[in-house]
Amino acid sequence: MEINNGAVLANEEGMKGKKSWGCKANERIIGCDSTIRGTVSMLTSHLNPHDPRPKVPFSQGDPSSFPSFRTSPVVEDAIVEALRSAKFNSYSPNCGVLNARRAVAEYLSRDLPIKLSPDQVLLTAGASQAIAFIISVLATPGANILLPQPGYLFYNTRATFSNLECRSYDLLPEQGWEVDINTVKALADENTVAMVIINPGNPCGNVYSYHHLKKVAETAEKLGILVIADEVYGHIAFGDKPFVPMGVFGSIVPIITLGSLSKRWVVPGWRLGWIATIDPNGILLESKIMESLKVCLNITNYPATFIQGAVPQILERTNGEFFERILNMLRQTSDILVDKLREIDCITCPHKPQGAMFTMVKLNVSLLEDIKDDMEFSIKLAKEESVLVLPGSSMGIKNWLRIMFAIEPDLLKDGLERIKSFCQRHAKLN
Amino acid sequence: MEINNGAVLANEEGMKGKKSWGCKANERIIGCDSTIRGTVSMLTSHLNPHDPRPKVPFSQGDPSSFPSFRTSPVVEDAIVEALRSAKFNSYSPNCGVLNARRAVAEYLSRDLPIKLSPDQVLLTAGASQAIAFIISVLATPGANILLPQPGYLFYNTRATFSNLECRSYDLLPEQGWEVDINTVKALADENTVAMVIINPGNPCGNVYSYHHLKKVAETAEKLGILVIADEVYGHIAFGDKPFVPMGVFGSIVPIITLGSLSKRWVVPGWRLGWIATIDPNGILLESKIMESLKVCLNITNYPATFIQGAVPQILERTNGEFFERILNMLRQTSDILVDKLREIDCITCPHKPQGAMFTMVKLNVSLLEDIKDDMEFSIKLAKEESVLVLPGSSMGIKNWLRIMFAIEPDLLKDGLERIKSFCQRHAKLN
Repeated sequence: MEINNGAVLANEEGMKGKKSWGCKANERIIGCDSTIRGTVSMLTSHLNPHDPRPKVPFSQGDPSSFPSFRTSPVVEDAIVEALRSAKFNSYSPNCGVLNARRAVAEYLSRDLPIKLSPDQVLLTAGASQAIAFIISVLATPGANILLPQPGYLFYNTRATFSNLECRSYDLLPEQGWEVDINTVKALADENTVAMVIINPGNPCGNVYSYHHLKKVAETAEKLGILVIADEVYGHIAFGDKPFVPMGVFGSIVPIITLGSLSKRWVVPGWRLGWIATIDPNGILLESKIMESLKVCLNITNYPATFIQGAVPQILERTNGEFFERILNMLRQTSDILVDKLREIDCITCPHKPQGAMFTMVKLNVSLLEDIKDDMEFSIKLAKEESVLVLPGSSMGIKNWLRIMFAIEPDLLKDGLERIKSFCQRHAKLN
Repeated sequence: MEINNGAVLANEEGMKGKKSWGCKANERIIGCDSTIRGTVSMLTSHLNPHDPRPKVPFSQGDPSSFPSFRTSPVVEDAIVEALRSAKFNSYSPNCGVLNARRAVAEYLSRDLPIKLSPDQVLLTAGASQAIAFIISVLATPGANILLPQPGYLFYNTRATFSNLECRSYDLLPEQGWEVDINTVKALADENTVAMVIINPGNPCGNVYSYHHLKKVAETAEKLGILVIADEVYGHIAFGDKPFVPMGVFGSIVPIITLGSLSKRWVVPGWRLGWIATIDPNGILLESKIMESLKVCLNITNYPATFIQGAVPQILERTNGEFFERILNMLRQTSDILVDKLREIDCITCPHKPQGAMFTMVKLNVSLLEDIKDDMEFSIKLAKEESVLVLPGSSMGIKNWLRIMFAIEPDLLKDGLERIKSFCQRHAKLN
């Protein structure tokens, strides 16, 4: 038998007419590759390797490499303790280590009018796995889901992968990126299964008021759809509004809350997230959603057992000073960002960020000479200034930019100076 | 608006005819819940909580909780070092930490005629994620895959989930559980994309010879299908045959190898596995399989970054003595098992295990009074003796049992005594 350019000759015993190697990959999967990681990777490929200046990563919500954002020693110690105990080298029990699920239930219950039980909590390999599971479970034939725009692209990617129709509702920049309730009502129909709300907001840096969240819950209840509350940035609120978990309104509408250690503890690489159902009226019981989520976990993978084993210590022992320090850093860096952006003509920030690590800013390309849109802006900025910002078009809104500000202050200032001089250099001459 | 037994009254603004909460879970997912974990969980529910004797877990390939099988301190130290460096708290780079991929490439290359590059390696959250990705990528419409029987149920579960047709080829118990090449040839057709081979074998404890593996490679090449070599138990060979990696035959047929830290380093809860393509003739290039696997990794989750960061030290520093100690334990415990089984009339072991941590034994129910099949045997054994063995019917072969023997010797002997007295108690009186 000859192998020739990947083709196998067909006249062999057992071949049954086979003409070539049958192993073709599923093209549908390749078509799903639209993620922030993908965009960042594309922008990174445009960096000039000869630029001696440090790269400024305004692109991803991951400040863990900066000294000012290093996680607490308490958190590292908890991992070492769990590891050295040798009690957590085994496969994880179904649904996760019980004490860890109990600790998450207690952690979430601190801010809720009801007490969650460990049975309402599943541990996932980061919130991204939680998103993948929820989308997968809700993807019944013909169903659709309402997603915020601008939003977190990963929901759309997973929905495409699972054949779940996405419908985008607007966030209103002039109203602190609040949910446009009217578009939610207009988009929902009898096949709508849920709406996603991200608070504190990625990519907008919004923190919603109690009043606004209540209105969202009441709207969802009228529409008969559940609310998926993405609280990956939970408690990261440094403006004048406190963080209110959506679960507070669980008696109005069933809530599925997503969270993670990644952002509040600044360890996004640890891959420890959770899904909790907050449903005091038992409306979700018949839906078998929790049952299906457990199956997802059984047939997929789970967070490393010893990281699960460290969760009780992490949630109980991390002190308030650590959280305060991080919030102070974010308050300081968001102030630096907003102040500096005022000096740049072609960029407008409609709403000062109050939470999370991002803001969305509007790019006025009509003021620029040789840049036609946000994508070109981001690519040329990477090439010329070694500065990475995410183009809004990669999140479905053209000529906006997402800027992550959880960056060591000196580097942040340096990066903003580079954006300013880049914009001046490309400005239209009048 | 009233909420009543999960139904929402329909005459509300915005309801558009909606009659009830739309959130029904995808039933297809619930239908996929056939896993070893599921069977073990069912058996566990039958344990008698009043039995003062320790449970004997012959059921899962996870000896990590037994002192004699504790992982090496070198391995724990590597994790602590990576964690304390604070260099690995960030999101993982695409495809995994480069130094870890390089270390896996070098580790695998030690036993291959060619040198793998880091680009041929992807890190996954355990081998189970590797299996999920591969099945997902190969699941093109109409395609089928050949799986060993008895085999590892997770392949079937993931294939069901991804709508990939499974066809089971036989392993031959009287020939050391070798692949029945004739059934492979008979099952393959123009839609067959790959065959899976598990060596050292789960659940049969087989270790295949160079000669047999070569025959498998030649058969696959004739059929034009790639070989997925599940080497999760790689190097765990304690009989007279050495472990030969399937990749040795990469010049005959393209090989995708799966591996993991889980078994050889006895840390199944750490969730660190890999996929490597061994394809010196470049046959897979056009198939876009590696590209699709990378997309899977991008849109899913990856192993914790600091565990990836520890991989180079783990692979380079674990000394031979540790591996020898584990192999000696397995030689000793498999001897105890096989000797003891000779004293039990209704159980026959057709092939002494030479590798991995399992053996398949045949159950002669005609010798038993009140037990009709392997499932009833396993359930009653759990109930009466607090001993867990996996029924073969949960792996598609009725009236066989899978016995895991990587158990602390005293507990192993105790468990086997309990099986013996159970069988005597239920024996037919002649």
